[in-house]
Amino acid sequence: MMLNKKNLKDLYPEALAAEVDKNLKLYLNDYNHIPGRLKEAIGYCVLNGGKRLRPVLCLATAKSIGCSIEQVMPTACAIEFIHTYSLIHDDLPAIDNDDLRRGKPSCHKKFGEDIAILTGDALFAESFNLILKYQNSSPGKKLEVLSEIISAAGASGMVAGQVIDVSSTGKRTTKKNLEYMHLNKTSKLIIAAIRTSAIICNANSDVLKSLSIYGENIGLVFQIIDDILDITSSTGTSGKTQGKDIDNSKNTFPSLWGMDKSRKIAKEKTEKAIESIKDLDIDKKILTDIAKFILIREA
Amino acid sequence: MMLNKKNLKDLYPEALAAEVDKNLKLYLNDYNHIPGRLKEAIGYCVLNGGKRLRPVLCLATAKSIGCSIEQVMPTACAIEFIHTYSLIHDDLPAIDNDDLRRGKPSCHKKFGEDIAILTGDALFAESFNLILKYQNSSPGKKLEVLSEIISAAGASGMVAGQVIDVSSTGKRTTKKNLEYMHLNKTSKLIIAAIRTSAIICNANSDVLKSLSIYGENIGLVFQIIDDILDITSSTGTSGKTQGKDIDNSKNTFPSLWGMDKSRKIAKEKTEKAIESIKDLDIDKKILTDIAKFILIREA
Repeated sequence: MMLNKKNLKDLYPEALAAEVDKNLKLYLNDYNHIPGRLKEAIGYCVLNGGKRLRPVLCLATAKSIGCSIEQVMPTACAIEFIHTYSLIHDDLPAIDNDDLRRGKPSCHKKFGEDIAILTGDALFAESFNLILKYQNSSPGKKLEVLSEIISAAGASGMVAGQVIDVSSTGKRTTKKNLEYMHLNKTSKLIIAAIRTSAIICNANSDVLKSLSIYGENIGLVFQIIDDILDITSSTGTSGKTQGKDIDNSKNTFPSLWGMDKSRKIAKEKTEKAIESIKDLDIDKKILTDIAKFILIREA
Repeated sequence: MMLNKKNLKDLYPEALAAEVDKNLKLYLNDYNHIPGRLKEAIGYCVLNGGKRLRPVLCLATAKSIGCSIEQVMPTACAIEFIHTYSLIHDDLPAIDNDDLRRGKPSCHKKFGEDIAILTGDALFAESFNLILKYQNSSPGKKLEVLSEIISAAGASGMVAGQVIDVSSTGKRTTKKNLEYMHLNKTSKLIIAAIRTSAIICNANSDVLKSLSIYGENIGLVFQIIDDILDITSSTGTSGKTQGKDIDNSKNTFPSLWGMDKSRKIAKEKTEKAIESIKDLDIDKKILTDIAKFILIREA
């Protein structure tokens, strides 16, 4: 696999990210009647830019299966709501204490800690509302979609990863623990973004299984590169405070494996992700490109 | 309506609360594989006593309609998970900053703020998991139940009430605002506990409508009495820090209306609640008794 940075902008489906942004904006119209500060904070956090990786993966999966992106849009946006909620709570002083998010003051810096906690809570609830109100699927399928997302986000998923993260900060952890942490904290919601799309689009169980392996691997690569960029990328490029992981004595891939070995693992996992879908009877280009993008991204 | 404190212990269905406790304990077995600190914090908060008012109302509604309590148990316990999550986040230093809950250290005092935020997040997600995994209803009905709960808990419900609360603390608010705040913060989840039960038990729309009026009124009474007890009840009796609302310059019924008028409003709303269900063809005794209990409770 030969890649260079010149490929970067051709690899990521910006058009899909733009569709996500457009639809997120539309869904936010549902919140015109709620208390003003909550509405403002929700809008600020949801429309704060970002790559929209998770919803883009949801749309890309639908496209690759031959299903319309509109068909999975509510679920894609619901997953972005959950991702946004998790960032708001992550950034809180009691957790990562990060003042910057995507180059702007994080939610608690802008609105106060109380509103930040509550905005996260609101977005988590409203993510399910998007699916309940707008996802055009049979009741059984909607329940399957909800179940995938809740498992990914809950006590055996994202929250478990976060708890391991805060509990092991400042102590040297094992490599096994680190992978468990990232699998839960990052990969599971990425896997859910892909699997829910495949479920809505009636993919068979072989496709679902392969896509899960793809998702798990690109999720881990995403996190490894995130850890590397935390060290190498300036605050201006990443929109996050440079060196925050080191300041917080976080366990990361580079801190446990070193930079070179971390890059090597990321490359191997990217190859594994691409390999996992290569025999599927779907249009693989977009998912393959996204996997490559995640490996060589610079922000 | 003549009531005296001697009636108190006969009015509340302790047997239903015991059933709730038993089932909550069983459901917690699902969390044996999650990170130890999260499991411990979930167990500590969920099994920390309490009246179990919301799940008891869910079971009581089922009984009054002639449906078994087992039929609604997963939903009843899911609502208690949500209530527990909301208390954990409420108690945080950035919100109510309360060190005591039910006579014991609140979650963040016991486990730290980071774990408290995440335990709340986990319980919120897991509440939906209880319904998805254990609620024995048709897919369509399950979606209806989820929709009721999510609307009650989300940006147009409990979180909206909380945002009004933190935003108006220290400023004198209007009576209209106060009622809106309590309706969202307290009544909506109580209404959801009753309505979801009625939906699962196939109640018709007239019954649902009357039960909603009942729920709204007892919810407001519950909050008025809570505000009164915050002033009159010692920390030892209530398990919460006495006078916390005054310390926090909170807007409450007594602070806006005075004690006597607050008691009068509570009595009128209790009568309205009882009146709203009196013509229904269901067994009204248990719901009527709970309404009376809420008015004269001492903790």
